[in-house]
Amino acid sequence: MKNNFKIAVCQMNVVDDKELNLDKATKMICEASNNGAEMVVLPEMFNCPYDTNKFLAYAESMDSSISLKSVSNAAADNGVYLVAGSIPELLDGKLYNSSFIFDMKGKVINIHRKMHLFDINVPNEITFKESEVITAGNNITVLETDLAKIGVAICYDMRFPELFRLMTIKGAELVVVPGAFNKTTGPAHWETTIRARAIDNQTYMAVASPSQNIGMAYIAYGHSMVVDPWGNIIAQADEDEEIIYATIDKDYIYKVRKELPLLKNRRTDIYDLIEIIKNK
Amino acid sequence: MKNNFKIAVCQMNVVDDKELNLDKATKMICEASNNGAEMVVLPEMFNCPYDTNKFLAYAESMDSSISLKSVSNAAADNGVYLVAGSIPELLDGKLYNSSFIFDMKGKVINIHRKMHLFDINVPNEITFKESEVITAGNNITVLETDLAKIGVAICYDMRFPELFRLMTIKGAELVVVPGAFNKTTGPAHWETTIRARAIDNQTYMAVASPSQNIGMAYIAYGHSMVVDPWGNIIAQADEDEEIIYATIDKDYIYKVRKELPLLKNRRTDIYDLIEIIKNK
Repeated sequence: MKNNFKIAVCQMNVVDDKELNLDKATKMICEASNNGAEMVVLPEMFNCPYDTNKFLAYAESMDSSISLKSVSNAAADNGVYLVAGSIPELLDGKLYNSSFIFDMKGKVINIHRKMHLFDINVPNEITFKESEVITAGNNITVLETDLAKIGVAICYDMRFPELFRLMTIKGAELVVVPGAFNKTTGPAHWETTIRARAIDNQTYMAVASPSQNIGMAYIAYGHSMVVDPWGNIIAQADEDEEIIYATIDKDYIYKVRKELPLLKNRRTDIYDLIEIIKNK
Repeated sequence: MKNNFKIAVCQMNVVDDKELNLDKATKMICEASNNGAEMVVLPEMFNCPYDTNKFLAYAESMDSSISLKSVSNAAADNGVYLVAGSIPELLDGKLYNSSFIFDMKGKVINIHRKMHLFDINVPNEITFKESEVITAGNNITVLETDLAKIGVAICYDMRFPELFRLMTIKGAELVVVPGAFNKTTGPAHWETTIRARAIDNQTYMAVASPSQNIGMAYIAYGHSMVVDPWGNIIAQADEDEEIIYATIDKDYIYKVRKELPLLKNRRTDIYDLIEIIKNK
């Protein structure tokens, strides 16, 4: 296994037209690969506006999904690992916010279904109740790839340090997060939360937002970023559509963990974080 | 119980002279009280240089401590709650990094002994091995006061999100942290870590550092700060000696928790954070 590789985070301008979104995603995957990326990340709800009134109309089942077929082909054609942001997934009559992860041959190797649903009500600023239409997933997602061991979480999942600690304990070296904060929570919490997860767990973080699109009901914050295990921002977009690139250097993870042994210094004799395994 | 009160965080210039340090601490407590503070915080190792070679010489036992007697008198004389930073404490032949908490009558109402010991080795920048001389405490510290329910942690304890989550679950509305980051970890991690603990747990954070003193073997970062439950920095020092003040508004904690119900949205059916109670 190599010790470093290039990751591309696609800050797509998601619009209210699935076909245009799939075309854009495919082109961005191709461009990222042409620029040397071996792993590509799309934003949360890359095929669909982030809007509870739209999720059902855009939803697809895994077996008949044209969205997944498009990006699977793009991953295979370009030979890249792909964390395909997320789509509204229809499964057993329920809707999930689901991230499909593809290997370099375009095969689905794992699925993360958003575990924490985003319900917020800041009067006069932002109100959103994802739990009205989406069902929460029940699984922590960490998987081995040929490039690194990666964790995957979606947006509001990032708010919960327990999840990121458990992914780290399970061996995640890089956590990939498709996410869409907004213009209230973005300026207040986005960068601090992403950097703190990296600093506390001494992992890389790669977070992909849609670009800001003022035509949407929910305006994403943008500011996709990649952060290293010391907490440095090593790539960052502003609010517009852009692909950002960074090198994930696994040696650096273990250098940081040796110099400042946070994970070793946990007082697991005083507290313990346990995972409760449920049936899917 | 009142819904808000003023807190003072004393960014003391700690020097290599115990008597001068105690005199300074006493004066700062008095000044803070004169300015309306009802709770006062001193920095980590307020009576002693933060230097493993000095801790034993400055150490005191609780029953015969002139440092604790001085600040206890100052708390009582001024009628303030006091989180007395920390001192090197001698107990049963061992050294601890201990924070004594006093009520408005100068009585010790709790003691937090630093649970996580700071061992770092960043070549050519900073090397410090607290565990060579200090023994770790084994207790999570949350206590009721007449002003608020507070948690207390010391410096490197702040690196561990598990501890802050457990203090929150135990009801902490404000976490007080005497701490001394340095000129390597300070610029890299101080503000992000403090703000992330506040944002994740929706508590106030009040963190007291010694001021930067370039005469010391270990130069503290300064930048003492108070952060509100939305993550806003509401008071902040630079590197010099200063008292900073902020209002702790308990209503605001519960407003934030209602608008963005992070604590309610934890997936405790998937993960659980447990405390293991040990004998002292």
